[in-house]
Amino acid sequence: MTITMYDLAGAEPNRRFSPFCWRARMALAHKGLAVETVPWGFTEKDKLPQPNAGRVPVIVDGSAVIHDSTTIADYLEEHYVDRPSLFGGDTGRALTRFVQNWTETVLQPGIIPLVVLDIHRHSRPQDQDYFRRSREERFGRTLEEVVRDREARLPAFRASLDPLRRTVERQEFLCGKAPAYADYIVFGAFQWARAISDFELLAADDPVKAWRRCMLDLHGALARSTPAYGD
Amino acid sequence: MTITMYDLAGAEPNRRFSPFCWRARMALAHKGLAVETVPWGFTEKDKLPQPNAGRVPVIVDGSAVIHDSTTIADYLEEHYVDRPSLFGGDTGRALTRFVQNWTETVLQPGIIPLVVLDIHRHSRPQDQDYFRRSREERFGRTLEEVVRDREARLPAFRASLDPLRRTVERQEFLCGKAPAYADYIVFGAFQWARAISDFELLAADDPVKAWRRCMLDLHGALARSTPAYGD
Repeated sequence: MTITMYDLAGAEPNRRFSPFCWRARMALAHKGLAVETVPWGFTEKDKLPQPNAGRVPVIVDGSAVIHDSTTIADYLEEHYVDRPSLFGGDTGRALTRFVQNWTETVLQPGIIPLVVLDIHRHSRPQDQDYFRRSREERFGRTLEEVVRDREARLPAFRASLDPLRRTVERQEFLCGKAPAYADYIVFGAFQWARAISDFELLAADDPVKAWRRCMLDLHGALARSTPAYGD
Repeated sequence: MTITMYDLAGAEPNRRFSPFCWRARMALAHKGLAVETVPWGFTEKDKLPQPNAGRVPVIVDGSAVIHDSTTIADYLEEHYVDRPSLFGGDTGRALTRFVQNWTETVLQPGIIPLVVLDIHRHSRPQDQDYFRRSREERFGRTLEEVVRDREARLPAFRASLDPLRRTVERQEFLCGKAPAYADYIVFGAFQWARAISDFELLAADDPVKAWRRCMLDLHGALARSTPAYGD
């Protein structure tokens, strides 16, 4: 049976840019599960199936409704045990949490002040006010001020990728010879950026860029199916 | 048969402070292997068994001589497969590399400018000149200049621990319910600091400190056996 996934969309319904939704989307593909996505806008909180936390991804699998990307990954791992593993065991799952926490405390906070104005630009017109207001409140500055001088901040951002860079320089994927959920977590952040911004986060010869290209090719080039910038 | 391990020592032979040696020491204990350590000084390159790269740890296991902490961990995992695993499988091993790369590009480079003068102070008198010269060359400044204003740099260092902090806040160890090699890698860096410096890297209520305390208690409180500062 096909799983339904509520997926954050931009002004064009096929522009999918949530880092958390990309985690879930790649995890579903990793498990070889058929999925139908429903484009969803920031302000459509009442359109989500219950229960939810007012955010996507939310998936519906038969009678089960699961929200939050981490809970979804755990659900898929437990309910589809005969499919390829997302974690490769308990230690792999625990260490995936470290990668997630690095992504959420270093990588994503590093990306957002570089691209936040581009998210606004690509959001649905009816979501733009909500997006600007909520983010400007969080930053205490206008979105234009947040992204100002982003060129000057790029070297520090790129340096912050050293742990990732050194890893994918020495092995194919974060998870080894084949990708798994930790790769999808990190990839989600880059896919988010490239789906809404032409600001190139990575130098052409960066090993992280080569890894990202491999990630884009996975599962029938799934992640190339959304409008985006760069390779 | 007892394994021999060459282990970096300070002015007192029982002060062991190499982060890489602590990785190996904890890994040997994890595998339940008996070990006899040989205290070694920075300048005793000709005292190491062959082959070596002029650094410790080096272990001698029967007729095998293995150097480099990563190679040692891989060797122990492969040669003592019936003992508790250091990695929990291939995905765990691959993700352990990410933790290692975070430790070596963020954590250790963050610690060294806070404690480098203390390393000098605790080194064997005959190693002090070598240590000062090689490190001042690397920094392009005197050791005294490197550690100046370290109090002011402490908040940024503590913030850099966020990925670790958030992980051990939510689970017992980096590797889950029980410690494994990724924990030993990160712990090695903190053990290095506390073995040679009374400069407290961690706030009293930091979850990282609680985790470090658990690590100190492991394997018969092995890591408490060296002279050190703080709990």
